[in-house]
Amino acid sequence: MNATIITIGDEILIGQIVDTNTASISRKLNAIGLAIKEKTSIGDRAEEITECVKRAMAQSKVVIMTGGLGPTKDDITKTTLAEMFNSSLIYNEAEGEHIRTLLARRNIPFTDLNRSQALVPECCTVLHNAHGTAPGMWFDTEEGNIVISLPGVPFEMEHLMDEVVIPRLKECLELRSIVHKTLITRGIPESLLAERIEKWEDALPNYMHLAYLPAPNIVRLRLSAYDIEKKLAERAIDEEFGKLREIIGENIVGWEGATLEQQVHDILTRHNLTLATAESCTGGTIASKFTAMAGASAYFLAGVVAYANSAKSNIIGVNSEDIVRYGAVSESVARQMAEGVRRVAGADYAIATTGIAGPGGGSAEKPVGTVWMAVATPKGTIAQMRNCGTDRSQIISRASAYAIEMLYDQIKNM
Amino acid sequence: MNATIITIGDEILIGQIVDTNTASISRKLNAIGLAIKEKTSIGDRAEEITECVKRAMAQSKVVIMTGGLGPTKDDITKTTLAEMFNSSLIYNEAEGEHIRTLLARRNIPFTDLNRSQALVPECCTVLHNAHGTAPGMWFDTEEGNIVISLPGVPFEMEHLMDEVVIPRLKECLELRSIVHKTLITRGIPESLLAERIEKWEDALPNYMHLAYLPAPNIVRLRLSAYDIEKKLAERAIDEEFGKLREIIGENIVGWEGATLEQQVHDILTRHNLTLATAESCTGGTIASKFTAMAGASAYFLAGVVAYANSAKSNIIGVNSEDIVRYGAVSESVARQMAEGVRRVAGADYAIATTGIAGPGGGSAEKPVGTVWMAVATPKGTIAQMRNCGTDRSQIISRASAYAIEMLYDQIKNM
Repeated sequence: MNATIITIGDEILIGQIVDTNTASISRKLNAIGLAIKEKTSIGDRAEEITECVKRAMAQSKVVIMTGGLGPTKDDITKTTLAEMFNSSLIYNEAEGEHIRTLLARRNIPFTDLNRSQALVPECCTVLHNAHGTAPGMWFDTEEGNIVISLPGVPFEMEHLMDEVVIPRLKECLELRSIVHKTLITRGIPESLLAERIEKWEDALPNYMHLAYLPAPNIVRLRLSAYDIEKKLAERAIDEEFGKLREIIGENIVGWEGATLEQQVHDILTRHNLTLATAESCTGGTIASKFTAMAGASAYFLAGVVAYANSAKSNIIGVNSEDIVRYGAVSESVARQMAEGVRRVAGADYAIATTGIAGPGGGSAEKPVGTVWMAVATPKGTIAQMRNCGTDRSQIISRASAYAIEMLYDQIKNM
Repeated sequence: MNATIITIGDEILIGQIVDTNTASISRKLNAIGLAIKEKTSIGDRAEEITECVKRAMAQSKVVIMTGGLGPTKDDITKTTLAEMFNSSLIYNEAEGEHIRTLLARRNIPFTDLNRSQALVPECCTVLHNAHGTAPGMWFDTEEGNIVISLPGVPFEMEHLMDEVVIPRLKECLELRSIVHKTLITRGIPESLLAERIEKWEDALPNYMHLAYLPAPNIVRLRLSAYDIEKKLAERAIDEEFGKLREIIGENIVGWEGATLEQQVHDILTRHNLTLATAESCTGGTIASKFTAMAGASAYFLAGVVAYANSAKSNIIGVNSEDIVRYGAVSESVARQMAEGVRRVAGADYAIATTGIAGPGGGSAEKPVGTVWMAVATPKGTIAQMRNCGTDRSQIISRASAYAIEMLYDQIKNM
């Protein structure tokens, strides 16, 4: 038993918006044991919607659609479904009153267009949308499918999924479990990792599936098990990851949910230690990664984006002669940046980066991608040079990841 | 003539990642006049990939796939395509050398798995991936389709699209234009707006399509025209929006287009002016938005993430008594942050933010989401307070956007 997700809207097809609804719906369905067979996005055209829903019904018990339920002429999902299921649209009093109340609260008059939002196909079960004016619809089809149509506005869809759709699906379907668990490794590139764990991978039970998810400086390994008893599967996955720990223990960082910056966040918070950053080529990315986490103010004191050479000297005290002598992208400057911001901010630890993010500014000796990074600690300062790639956004994200990793290595055993 | 996009990977189907590749590919294809018929995401399973590609070939001249080209066992796109097109995999010397060089630069040994990345179906044209180890592939099929397989890593896909795929498609297809233009309205709810512009909408030329895109407080109106002569269509759309301006002129905010930070980037660069930032609640996000753009070093001098009160005083000279008297989240502190970093960095303009990003730290007087922001200019300093929402990431992103907008308003008429 599985599900197909269909998102409707020309704005998705022309790339005007990124479709985040399908990822959210997938996670919610996976959590109750329903796997996703396919996700499709199509435009607001009746014949394509009909064809796509029919194809989805042929391959999946459950079809979940979002979008096309607004009050305007370009929204045609509801009339298309009514026609497809040979049902007429009838006015739903309760939904009509709900829409009238919602609009009145915002001082918006109730128009014919709003009234039309309370029209629903006679054959469907109305899914009450407490947070918006477009009701959801649930069709039990003759062919034995469940076809669900939800509004495309993300928070309305989220509420309807959590409060109405998921409880109903759990009630009327007999579902077993899907278990995913993801381990984070670092310091070993994907291809080498795959070779080192090949025997382990080949010996995995048949019902367990391994996926590699590479990202700058880390590779995530996900084990998935479908259609099984939850407790047993969780135990089996933990056992397999336990065997893996014996093979590549030194490369394992932790479980997903815990990025390196989250782990640094936890360690610093727990030990009442503080952090500052001095960034050149990473331009504030490292600071923004820490400050994105709730509670960062407990340890994050200050960051300096020392982009211009004058900023390196004036704000964090890098010797301007050294900038001339060694270049802004050099071990000496990286060290002085880390030590300087640590001193200025009065922090226990400091991270610094200086490099060439490109596309301009590279040379034969220091090509685009060359990044010096340093970490200043109460016991001294360490520095390293890494080549972080060729593309500006890649260089910024890799350099940020490597620099955070350097700090992590200094404090991980606390 | 149209295209279908297929993204491959279990991580998409289980919702572990949000698929951003399809939106990006759609925009690039629309820009050269190729409309998207459908987007589909499927898992890493050979029979589903084959079926999906065949279906796409039946409905679209061009099929673009991403994902499944990594070196590990879960990546099967390449072997599946080779089998589908009855072609054997051969070793491509040039790609092999490229992979070896890329890895050597990062001190990673070249293994059999890496070697296998240089294996490509004999019948395809190899699309050189300068920024990664998985080459792209271009198949001209017997049925007359163009099937293109690209790596799923976003920046590798982006480079291949821009530098190889788009130029080749333009060369071998005769494409007319697609024109989209989006007007932003505010202060009028979608249903009322639809009623007020109904006559205008009904009188639109047949080849023009109107879409309503509602969001909190704004409704975007998009006019699209497909398969037409570009200049004519642009003029016709401008004329229609001109008529609309007579009906709802007071509700029109402007056009959707370049981001505000890009516009600030362009203006500052053009006028040889410089910028500094002082961020508290936005934690480096504003600095990272500017420094993400190539050429930022021409105007971006320095940013300070003044998270702790001591950093506000020590690094950019905010009066510590004022922090006690008015609070860190106050007009006075925001103004002093902007003026302080402008002085310390020696910049022409400076942006500052100080607010409560939550989830903790709010009070009745200053709830979570309260953000003071200031812009210091050669002519003086302005400040405003905005409520930026309830969720930490939402607050950081809105406050960053509002603060950049404040600067933009000061320089837009240069």
